[in-house]
Amino acid sequence: MKAISIGLLGLGTVGAGVIQIIKNHQDKLMHQVGCPVIIKKILVQDINKTRSIEVEKELLTSNADEILNDKEIDVIIEVMGGVGATKDYLINALRQGKHVVTANKDLMALHGSELLTVASEHGCDLFYEASVAGGIPILRGLVDGLASDRITQMMGIVNGTTNYILTKMSNEGRSYDEVLKEAQALGFAEADPTSDVEGLDAARKMAILATLGFSMHIDLEDVEVSGISNVTEEDLRYGEQLGYTMKLIGYAHREEEKVEVSVAPTFLSDNHPLASVQNEYNAVYVYGEAVGETMFYGPGAGSLPTATAVVSDLVAVIKNLRLGVNGRSAVTPQYSKQLKDDGEKFSKYFLRIHVQDEVGVFAEITSIFAKHGVSFEKILQLPIKKNETSEIVLVTHRSSLTDYDQILQKLTDLDAVKEIKSAYRVVRN
Amino acid sequence: MKAISIGLLGLGTVGAGVIQIIKNHQDKLMHQVGCPVIIKKILVQDINKTRSIEVEKELLTSNADEILNDKEIDVIIEVMGGVGATKDYLINALRQGKHVVTANKDLMALHGSELLTVASEHGCDLFYEASVAGGIPILRGLVDGLASDRITQMMGIVNGTTNYILTKMSNEGRSYDEVLKEAQALGFAEADPTSDVEGLDAARKMAILATLGFSMHIDLEDVEVSGISNVTEEDLRYGEQLGYTMKLIGYAHREEEKVEVSVAPTFLSDNHPLASVQNEYNAVYVYGEAVGETMFYGPGAGSLPTATAVVSDLVAVIKNLRLGVNGRSAVTPQYSKQLKDDGEKFSKYFLRIHVQDEVGVFAEITSIFAKHGVSFEKILQLPIKKNETSEIVLVTHRSSLTDYDQILQKLTDLDAVKEIKSAYRVVRN
Repeated sequence: MKAISIGLLGLGTVGAGVIQIIKNHQDKLMHQVGCPVIIKKILVQDINKTRSIEVEKELLTSNADEILNDKEIDVIIEVMGGVGATKDYLINALRQGKHVVTANKDLMALHGSELLTVASEHGCDLFYEASVAGGIPILRGLVDGLASDRITQMMGIVNGTTNYILTKMSNEGRSYDEVLKEAQALGFAEADPTSDVEGLDAARKMAILATLGFSMHIDLEDVEVSGISNVTEEDLRYGEQLGYTMKLIGYAHREEEKVEVSVAPTFLSDNHPLASVQNEYNAVYVYGEAVGETMFYGPGAGSLPTATAVVSDLVAVIKNLRLGVNGRSAVTPQYSKQLKDDGEKFSKYFLRIHVQDEVGVFAEITSIFAKHGVSFEKILQLPIKKNETSEIVLVTHRSSLTDYDQILQKLTDLDAVKEIKSAYRVVRN
Repeated sequence: MKAISIGLLGLGTVGAGVIQIIKNHQDKLMHQVGCPVIIKKILVQDINKTRSIEVEKELLTSNADEILNDKEIDVIIEVMGGVGATKDYLINALRQGKHVVTANKDLMALHGSELLTVASEHGCDLFYEASVAGGIPILRGLVDGLASDRITQMMGIVNGTTNYILTKMSNEGRSYDEVLKEAQALGFAEADPTSDVEGLDAARKMAILATLGFSMHIDLEDVEVSGISNVTEEDLRYGEQLGYTMKLIGYAHREEEKVEVSVAPTFLSDNHPLASVQNEYNAVYVYGEAVGETMFYGPGAGSLPTATAVVSDLVAVIKNLRLGVNGRSAVTPQYSKQLKDDGEKFSKYFLRIHVQDEVGVFAEITSIFAKHGVSFEKILQLPIKKNETSEIVLVTHRSSLTDYDQILQKLTDLDAVKEIKSAYRVVRN
């Protein structure tokens, strides 16, 4: 039986994982797809580099054309990362009728729509399960498992680094800077952690999830993003008192035909299924009109989990190849994009404010909320020892983002308000 | 475009849910499968019964042959339950080239292998996602999402009734009998709760999961079962002190080529992902060699969640129909069945024993464990006020089931042992 030949772009940790899984599970793969699977060529930057995995040197090439123009290669697995050249490689491969499996969230978030169109035009599969939440088969869950349902809400912990940092801060009462440094030393955070801690990585994954879940093309710039670098131990301590756990939450919500997608540090009530997701784990909570609450949990990154998702996509491509039905499973968005206005976005909010410790200040503050029709779920007022300052902690009931922004502005303008120390979204179960 | 015609067997709550979803999501279905989906006939016992859902009376029939012999019906959806006649109906349907979607766990656990063989012989799809854990797309996760991985362990909370009872007992300190009665009054437990509380329902689901996850035909009688009807509030209270939560756990484990599958009340360490699954929710924890820990969480039952899974399977059947590739996606088991001997089954155990409050008894007991090479992780000894009785609570390190059974026998034979109050498996994260 004719073997399926793979061209591998990139040989980092995920690439090495893919090779390892294909080698170790050759019999299982053979059982599932009915033919041998062979890695024919591997694109690397430096052929002579020492590697963690043993690879025959004649498989390596530093010239992408040797792979893209090889007529015998059926499937391209892209685990090299990057957006510019990588995109050109994949478009070139698809135009030559090669199927593509990619783990590249940046590429899919920025150019997924274009790549899927090219794939469809050329009858090719383009699968990207590994681009969101590594080892969790969430994209399959959305496309196939909940095929008949109308998904109205998705909430995801889709970045392992920030979840690790928040878990450590919360469990050990340590500061953001201290935990970040430790995470960098342990290899859980990168030397430049911006993309993780400022929420950009999570935003890319939420754009991909929302596009699939809502069947509507959501661009990366449609996602409102804020990160965790300003989260303090005090915030977490107040959260704990109030029964909340802080997570960096990717939030996607649909109401009628309009959607919103955001990433922000968020207080979840402790009994929310996402609140117990610890350390570097990821989870995606999905609410469907018929199915109700479901959650997918697992490792969001790591070479073997990500490689598992890549090889699962490869199995799907090969099954399609053997059935002669490639290029037909991509789901084009059913709806044209409609984003909510700020007045249509609702949330509860947590606010921590430092004010002058004077008579009447409290009433002045609460009256601002009252004018916008926003009431409170919880209020704590605590005197601080120095500088005649009081600390007020408020948890609001539902407010529109428009009202919330105006309230924040009015609070800032108030003489009695010294500083708005922190402000977070609150989600209760 | 030719519509796809469905024959529905059964019009209980799940059947009504299927009708509702197909009606409400006609446009989404149309977008996904490219043709209209029509329910052509419905098998019911009593055509004149008043129903919660509005259905045109001419769709109803009490004669199965009118559906099974209707050449225009492409797909049979079976939500009538039962094993005897239902099996005959489905075999009849498959032989006539009709594809089948079923939510029937009893049928699949008892006759799944035979039905899948008939389906495959006649080029028909037979899908049964809804038979395990209602709305959670776990079967797809196992077959597709973790396609390339080697699954070594599955642990499932796959029965909502027992999880509801254990959650209430644990959170509210109430007795089994009291909570069961309440659950029956609320409709969470059946009038005859045996199948749920004695673990039989969970065993059926575990047989299906293990067959798929291990690619090995596991029969229902291969699953060792014990239920929750003897679990007491005291047990839960001791568990709480030791940092454990009690769940009815379906456990499937593979080591080399041998497997074990069981259902038993089990103490999980509080930080285990399954420990926080509350009330009627289900979850399946899967450990794969490459992916590590993943978990699928959601509603395990309920008419709409189950109907969602049914309609998702229907979408898969119709996609295959349009591609002309039905009957090729069933995965025949790769391995022949090999069950572990008791000497190859390992676990930690929790034991609560009432003994004579005399000098030397404790040493006598611990020496029995020592002779079998079983050591302790935790020991509590507490005097009980009356009858010169002491209570000993032991948590062992790993022991084989053979050793454990012999230890239990020797303890029972000991004069100083008044009663073995309880004995449970312990799983730590």
